[in-house]
Amino acid sequence: MRNFDENSITQAVLDRVSQAKDARQRQISQALVRHLHAFVKEVEPTMPEWEAAIGFLTRTGQMCDDKRQEFILLSDTLGVSMLVDAINHRDAAGATDTTVLGPFYVQGPSEFPLGSDISEGMKGEPLFVSGSVASADGTPLPGAAVDVWHSDEDGYYDVQQIEEIGGLSMRARLIADGEGRFHLWTIKPAAYPIPHDGPVGDMLEAQGRHPYRPAHVHFMIHAQGHDTLVTHVFIAGDKYLDSDVVFGVKDSLIREFAAHSAGPAPAGRVLDRPWSSLHYDFRLKRSGP
Amino acid sequence: MRNFDENSITQAVLDRVSQAKDARQRQISQALVRHLHAFVKEVEPTMPEWEAAIGFLTRTGQMCDDKRQEFILLSDTLGVSMLVDAINHRDAAGATDTTVLGPFYVQGPSEFPLGSDISEGMKGEPLFVSGSVASADGTPLPGAAVDVWHSDEDGYYDVQQIEEIGGLSMRARLIADGEGRFHLWTIKPAAYPIPHDGPVGDMLEAQGRHPYRPAHVHFMIHAQGHDTLVTHVFIAGDKYLDSDVVFGVKDSLIREFAAHSAGPAPAGRVLDRPWSSLHYDFRLKRSGP
Repeated sequence: MRNFDENSITQAVLDRVSQAKDARQRQISQALVRHLHAFVKEVEPTMPEWEAAIGFLTRTGQMCDDKRQEFILLSDTLGVSMLVDAINHRDAAGATDTTVLGPFYVQGPSEFPLGSDISEGMKGEPLFVSGSVASADGTPLPGAAVDVWHSDEDGYYDVQQIEEIGGLSMRARLIADGEGRFHLWTIKPAAYPIPHDGPVGDMLEAQGRHPYRPAHVHFMIHAQGHDTLVTHVFIAGDKYLDSDVVFGVKDSLIREFAAHSAGPAPAGRVLDRPWSSLHYDFRLKRSGP
Repeated sequence: MRNFDENSITQAVLDRVSQAKDARQRQISQALVRHLHAFVKEVEPTMPEWEAAIGFLTRTGQMCDDKRQEFILLSDTLGVSMLVDAINHRDAAGATDTTVLGPFYVQGPSEFPLGSDISEGMKGEPLFVSGSVASADGTPLPGAAVDVWHSDEDGYYDVQQIEEIGGLSMRARLIADGEGRFHLWTIKPAAYPIPHDGPVGDMLEAQGRHPYRPAHVHFMIHAQGHDTLVTHVFIAGDKYLDSDVVFGVKDSLIREFAAHSAGPAPAGRVLDRPWSSLHYDFRLKRSGP
């Protein structure tokens, strides 16, 4: 097998990857080769364009470290993450809608007692978050593990400013009570640009796109016998709800963040300034076929 | 624009990238989104498979440094490099066939006088390389810059063992003489596995493929008024000619490496052991439309 030209090479590569023993590996490899070659045949890259693509992918990988995942940003901004999410949540009847994980989740968040302030002194408007976790049929899920994480009032996550703030913040795991309920204090997050000082930012600029996401609070909820739910709750009225750079907004995930005046507040607090509150009742899909 | 599902998201992303001002950027972005989404829709990756893909691409980028280009290896082993090469050399009538650049070219090679030994003391069977450079119509190209690079007798390039050997070796630029001819001494290269201790090696193993390339000498030839020629000359009889892991072999690029006994040899040498010789007459395509 030699002397391949643009008409014969695709089949040659397909024949080669068909040697994969694992059927799923074989299926994915074959599909990758067909679609990748079809893309190349359609755009007919020049040699400098091919070099630019190699350079782009290389820089994307090299931008990744324990605080930044540039390939997730690339997947998010090309709509791939939401597409994969949709494919994996076709039959979620009754369960809360899902959206992208995003690049800022940190494995193994610290557990906080219900009612804690998880903002650990970050400045911003106080936000009271409450909610409940139930199975899709409405049965409460006591003891569900609720992971919460969000940005500060300037739109930055803790991991983006960890040297300045000295540790993680605005992220926690709470354990739902006997009726599947949870509540916590934190600060109100802001809309923000995804990190755009790397290759993905260059791509967005070349594509004439802004890098903003509407303000939201992330949730990942685990409960025995149920699929883990990965989602956000968005703030109603945000100017970027219709142009989220990662295509993640669903109407079912938007909530009013109710405004309150200074004075008595939940969880025994008395506040000397205005605060907001957010409530969301989550429904999880039962695991299994 | 929100509430995207697997049927609506592709058009939403296409609409977004259509904001690109540059027409070529717009074309490439749109094609990328269409083909990438078609791939995802066909294979329907699970969330763990998506995570594995992110991890694979990240590791591929992080494997790259000034001595290793893992994304070029990925492009090569998926047949993309040869496809791009074929697309860019459709109308090369009369010019030498091209093949992949590979990951081991080093910019700005040192210039050696004609007849030099460029192996700089590496052990191996002496190889005399001679050739000529002409335009596709046969007109000699005096002063053409001939970049040569190849592996050692164990199949390793200098950059893969630079700590051990202390510098570059088996690579040089020669300037063709008044009749477009060049000659040099070096050592005979060997077939070798591409570096396979990284993600590309993992992919090849999963696909049931060996990582070998047949023995060859790389050439990159520059001459005024002509397209730069990037090619190899392969050793006839190599066991991997029909299964080159990067699909790069063309019959027109295979030559017998003639065997000679000890004794007088070209360029004023007298050898006390057997040596080989290789000759290739290169033809370059005139630049321009």
